[in-house]
Amino acid sequence: MALPTTYTRVALANRPRDFINSDTFSTEIQRLEDLKPSDTHVVVRVDYISLDPAMRGWINEKGSYVSAVKIGETMRAFGFGTVVKVKDGKTGGLRVGDTVKGQMGWAEYRLLRESELEKLSIQRGLDVLDYLGPLSYPGYTAYFGLFDVGKIKAGETLVVSGAAGAVGSIACQIGKLKGCRVIAIAGSQDKCEWLENELGVDKALNYKDGDFYKKCKEIFAASGSGADAGGWDVYFDNVGGDMLDFMLTRMRKGARVALCGTISQYNSSKPKGLASYTNLIVMRARIEGFLVYGINHSLSRALTTHQIPYRMDYASKFAEAEREMAQWILEGKLKRKYHVVEGLAKAPEAINLLFTGGNTGKLIVKVSKGASSRL
Amino acid sequence: MALPTTYTRVALANRPRDFINSDTFSTEIQRLEDLKPSDTHVVVRVDYISLDPAMRGWINEKGSYVSAVKIGETMRAFGFGTVVKVKDGKTGGLRVGDTVKGQMGWAEYRLLRESELEKLSIQRGLDVLDYLGPLSYPGYTAYFGLFDVGKIKAGETLVVSGAAGAVGSIACQIGKLKGCRVIAIAGSQDKCEWLENELGVDKALNYKDGDFYKKCKEIFAASGSGADAGGWDVYFDNVGGDMLDFMLTRMRKGARVALCGTISQYNSSKPKGLASYTNLIVMRARIEGFLVYGINHSLSRALTTHQIPYRMDYASKFAEAEREMAQWILEGKLKRKYHVVEGLAKAPEAINLLFTGGNTGKLIVKVSKGASSRL
Repeated sequence: MALPTTYTRVALANRPRDFINSDTFSTEIQRLEDLKPSDTHVVVRVDYISLDPAMRGWINEKGSYVSAVKIGETMRAFGFGTVVKVKDGKTGGLRVGDTVKGQMGWAEYRLLRESELEKLSIQRGLDVLDYLGPLSYPGYTAYFGLFDVGKIKAGETLVVSGAAGAVGSIACQIGKLKGCRVIAIAGSQDKCEWLENELGVDKALNYKDGDFYKKCKEIFAASGSGADAGGWDVYFDNVGGDMLDFMLTRMRKGARVALCGTISQYNSSKPKGLASYTNLIVMRARIEGFLVYGINHSLSRALTTHQIPYRMDYASKFAEAEREMAQWILEGKLKRKYHVVEGLAKAPEAINLLFTGGNTGKLIVKVSKGASSRL
Repeated sequence: MALPTTYTRVALANRPRDFINSDTFSTEIQRLEDLKPSDTHVVVRVDYISLDPAMRGWINEKGSYVSAVKIGETMRAFGFGTVVKVKDGKTGGLRVGDTVKGQMGWAEYRLLRESELEKLSIQRGLDVLDYLGPLSYPGYTAYFGLFDVGKIKAGETLVVSGAAGAVGSIACQIGKLKGCRVIAIAGSQDKCEWLENELGVDKALNYKDGDFYKKCKEIFAASGSGADAGGWDVYFDNVGGDMLDFMLTRMRKGARVALCGTISQYNSSKPKGLASYTNLIVMRARIEGFLVYGINHSLSRALTTHQIPYRMDYASKFAEAEREMAQWILEGKLKRKYHVVEGLAKAPEAINLLFTGGNTGKLIVKVSKGASSRL
């Protein structure tokens, strides 16, 4: 495999106070020959990386559920790559040309510990990008958030915020597949049309509309005769903030918030408080936070490397979720949309799309020109 | 039974905006002969009534989990009384002299529907007041809040706020009986000493101390070596507000808030918001509201009378809780303290003790001079 002499990596330069800006990351050119494979490490060409809202927490001083990325360190990112160099004469393990998944980071090439990589075989009929979408964290998050945390039941009303995003769009569709009424909340008319017409939600609402809260109140009116009258049963929330506070005033008895993210608060140094939490008592309702993290059983060592103090939630059930979702994709029941940005140089700007609502579906950076999206 | 010609009742006169004040209730003298027993109704002398924080919600315009008390209506209260008059010649059912429990209200005498009353037999060795404490809503609330909502386990750290109150003091003791480390929060040095010395909690903290939050931080310090290092597992919260917001920053992974009350917010027209709810995600933790309401299976008709739109949570398990707690009392393992105010005239003032921290243990009004505390 012909390799270039240099490659680009993007490192954390300054911790942002609020939004990620042009000072946050620095781009450096490195010499590829400095990446030397060993008995334990291989050189990987990074093909695709996933951009996720959680990254905003990773670059805070205190980190979040994982340790903070250090200043000067290559920005962390999950993704795919191709093994391009192994130690001469090494037998067994990964070989040149293997497709691998794991913590790739924001770099065109990386020297990575073999034990922290997993060889990927793409199931016939699926797109390689699916392994960054429904068959990876976004999919697991929607799946376990709905079943294990939200405990959705057929006939219930499910509200999903951030519904046009990677996790939200899967949550909406699983909700429909399981017989829920689904009300989707997104940030543009286009997204709402996609959610209603393509993904089949019962109702999509644009939270940027001036009469958004009025419409919500109508839908959930206690006196209404519709299926959603009186409120919702499960709120799969990616957003937090004012919208969550409002939703707490429109709960049915025994309602559950599956609190997946609070993206409205990530770039704020002073998060806004929830005032309506007192309704949880009257409605015997709950807000439960959850987090799906971990890569794979075989990769638990990678987690200790990052000093993650928690067990990997749900990891023992990743395979089950993946199997069910792959089946839905093959049967045409689970649609996916990928927003692919070309070139690592665009990553520092592209990540803000997650916070400005600029992406529909899963946001991905195609790092290597040589990478194919259909294997 | 010699009866007076007149009696006093206390009615709701004005809905308070914040604290209950001298305009909130009006006292009226009524003629006893106007209370006429019938085939369905009996006249009851009210002996004891329970004063509870939830009453603040009942007199709001919108009510809370039950319909609002109307202006001019006798203030609602659970309690005990003695049947003093039944219809002449009536056979079966309640008889003069029977002790009954139910919705007595703030009155010295009431004409009450027989089917909404339950005849009470006091178990040998127990005090009648126990049937307004551990063997009534305060007891059920502590019991189901800890087991069904908080899901306490031996060895966990349990924090209880409002710990010297009716519910909190029972919650602390059940926590100890079940093998938890118990940290109690109360509002005076005397209460803290009672909690540590009499009820046996591991640590009691006075939230009115200037260094309260500093002490909390020390106890839950991540680097600490004590049993509470890193945070708490279950927070039985009667208070809400700033203290809950702080506690959300000191959770262990998988922590549960059993949200029983938000007494710090009841007298406020603008509840303060929770800012730290975003930690629920990182800690995979939850806040769950709950409510124990209902009197007894046989009294479900009383609830429809009050237009309560919910089933009675946990009612099917009241008997089980009562049996276990009665046993603990008889074995000397569950201590109780009653703060008894003499005379109905004092009720409008006494109820504010609940909000100013003036009571230790269960707050009760002895309405009738003839009532005995030991039957």
